Amino acid sequence: MIEANNPDLRSWIEVPQNSDFPIQNIPFGVAKSKKGTAVVTRIGNTVINLHQLALKNLISFDSKVFDSASLNAMMLLGKQATREIRNQVSMLFRESNQNAKSNPEVLESLLSINEVEMQLPIQIGDYTDFYSSEQHAYNVGCLFRDPKNALLPNWKYIPVGYHGRSSSILPSGVPIHRPKGQKKPNPDGLPIFGNCSLLDFELETAFFTYQGKPIGESITTDEADDYIFGMALLNDWSARDIQAWEYVPLGPFLAKNFASHISCWIVTLDALEPFRVSGPIQDPKVFPYLEYKGDKHIDINLEVAIKPENSTETVVCKSNYKHMYWNMNQQLAHHTINGCNIRVGDCMGSGTISGPNEGEYGSMLEISWKGTKPVKMNDGSERKFIEDNDTVIIRGYAQKNGVRIGFGEVYNKILPAK
Amino acid sequence: MIEANNPDLRSWIEVPQNSDFPIQNIPFGVAKSKKGTAVVTRIGNTVINLHQLALKNLISFDSKVFDSASLNAMMLLGKQATREIRNQVSMLFRESNQNAKSNPEVLESLLSINEVEMQLPIQIGDYTDFYSSEQHAYNVGCLFRDPKNALLPNWKYIPVGYHGRSSSILPSGVPIHRPKGQKKPNPDGLPIFGNCSLLDFELETAFFTYQGKPIGESITTDEADDYIFGMALLNDWSARDIQAWEYVPLGPFLAKNFASHISCWIVTLDALEPFRVSGPIQDPKVFPYLEYKGDKHIDINLEVAIKPENSTETVVCKSNYKHMYWNMNQQLAHHTINGCNIRVGDCMGSGTISGPNEGEYGSMLEISWKGTKPVKMNDGSERKFIEDNDTVIIRGYAQKNGVRIGFGEVYNKILPAK
Repeated sequence: MIEANNPDLRSWIEVPQNSDFPIQNIPFGVAKSKKGTAVVTRIGNTVINLHQLALKNLISFDSKVFDSASLNAMMLLGKQATREIRNQVSMLFRESNQNAKSNPEVLESLLSINEVEMQLPIQIGDYTDFYSSEQHAYNVGCLFRDPKNALLPNWKYIPVGYHGRSSSILPSGVPIHRPKGQKKPNPDGLPIFGNCSLLDFELETAFFTYQGKPIGESITTDEADDYIFGMALLNDWSARDIQAWEYVPLGPFLAKNFASHISCWIVTLDALEPFRVSGPIQDPKVFPYLEYKGDKHIDINLEVAIKPENSTETVVCKSNYKHMYWNMNQQLAHHTINGCNIRVGDCMGSGTISGPNEGEYGSMLEISWKGTKPVKMNDGSERKFIEDNDTVIIRGYAQKNGVRIGFGEVYNKILPAK
Repeated sequence: MIEANNPDLRSWIEVPQNSDFPIQNIPFGVAKSKKGTAVVTRIGNTVINLHQLALKNLISFDSKVFDSASLNAMMLLGKQATREIRNQVSMLFRESNQNAKSNPEVLESLLSINEVEMQLPIQIGDYTDFYSSEQHAYNVGCLFRDPKNALLPNWKYIPVGYHGRSSSILPSGVPIHRPKGQKKPNPDGLPIFGNCSLLDFELETAFFTYQGKPIGESITTDEADDYIFGMALLNDWSARDIQAWEYVPLGPFLAKNFASHISCWIVTLDALEPFRVSGPIQDPKVFPYLEYKGDKHIDINLEVAIKPENSTETVVCKSNYKHMYWNMNQQLAHHTINGCNIRVGDCMGSGTISGPNEGEYGSMLEISWKGTKPVKMNDGSERKFIEDNDTVIIRGYAQKNGVRIGFGEVYNKILPAK
């Protein structure tokens, strides 16, 4: 077991009940405060400035890597180093370390979560989005093709993915405007230009990579864990009407690249290790480069809520990351099998994560079944897709043996089109 | 007229006949030599170290922006600044400036092209590839669908594009290995895994952007020129067999992201201004956000040659950038109409540039008409697609009034699969 994952650990920093951030989590983020911008971690609602800790030699790493507006410099140190940072932070803040609790230099490194503005944590190189939930692919196939041939022939052979836009990946909290674009509401009519009418979220997770191998080499499923830094929640906003008109033959473009939002805390793969579970039996048998050993799926509870303006939220989806057909190891092995290189800070989305039952679907497209089954909201209103001034909230956490490792949330409001 | 574009100018640096790099070009690149890595320009076969010139105050810009392994810092200064750098270089090296010719500090900034190793010139943020040549889209439609419905319904409304992979964009000269992947050679059979059998080039140009507007705003066709730094040649390598099996429904992925190559000199949009020509009449009429004023196409001669191992090259395609249906201004206006932001150093490919006649097609897929019309090579061999140890060379230049503004070449060898 990785030392920092010990379920018996408690911190001398207060951790509220049901907090996503006990001492076993130790996620990484970037926070801006009156004192500047730095790499931080978090226990309970307390933000810990790693740059300050390193400056005072309270953790034994070059302080420069934490004096940054992104995690990339720290991530360039590699997996063993980030594991060691987590362990040193764990040592410093565990209940038994009462010296640290009374050390002014340690206390000076602490801030309340209310005193900081969380930033986009990673300078993202390339962004790839997969399409790896079978139920989602099946639902989309039923909606746009035929339930008998819902899955395309390649789907069970290939962890299908495509390239997305990294420039417009934003941190939780930053509102966006409804996009405009071309659409063709009448299948027999001409296209028109206007505001997106079918704005949707997609419930996803993302993983972020360490520096990979040189171009021309591949990462095996066995090696993949060593190249995965951690995970976040991802809302892959989708303009369904723009998408339907533009996406043949080269895939989604303006329907997706107006914005995507990620949660601000990157939870390390190490912190998620205790929550590994087995994946589905893959039939047909996958090609040898996609075979994997051990439990490579992860049990992460996910939910999506919609909060209309001046109203309370309604949870519209409860899903779980364990429902994925293809796991991250397979995704990374596939991505590099042709020699494509990955770099530090690349972002790889899971694709919409839909569970097998109604109530577990990860997009309004599926939840409202293409607008035919409106969702009743707590305030009496109905939703087929996302309306102006709605806030969409994605949350996620893993839980076992009394320890809850969470991501916080992605919380984003849709403003009217400009 | 931009001063540096004056066709009567001559340089005191020797410029060989038919050089792509007269004093009117002044392209930008990054060169590595014994003295280090710096931002450079070129006249004839002489490389000019801009960092050295700035250190000696021979050009009046902060030397730091040239002391870099990429052009990005210089590009962040914006269009007026890069225009002024070109003008100052032009003043220094024109024939009439005999003082400069005898100034040791100027002479110390010069290197022969043989003394340097050209680098990838730009740290590329996002890479977008368009699909904007009508003949190419028509040819592909004929090959995979039906000549009567070759163009998809959206093609004349939308400058169709998709996101590509920036991590694997390489400079001219770096060889790559034939990729491996899943393919399904027998339409009624099962997929297999193996080396790509249908490896192809795509003759493209790329443009590179200055820093754009904030997310949520759009760049109009009128404004687009101010956000375009310059152009290069692009070989968008494509594995046709991998592509055919993977690309539905989300577009090309491993078929493209194993590598793309660009030429090492970025020719500024300013240098290409004299070669503007009008574009095709666009029917149906485009949406207002895609309308544009003036001549926004550019007359750039393009050619592709294949050089088998130990043999001479055979030119297999002569095309021209003026054949584009959608121009860069329209591409950029479309890309941002939904609020998508662009950043300094983003790369936007044209899509394969095919002319209207046989002999002008920009990929082997079209040239060999899906392998049905093999191309006779000078050495007596035939090509349907690219074979191991072939070198593919793309060249391009604009010419008018005795001035030739060229790009050099993209010259890349395909090594056998690993």
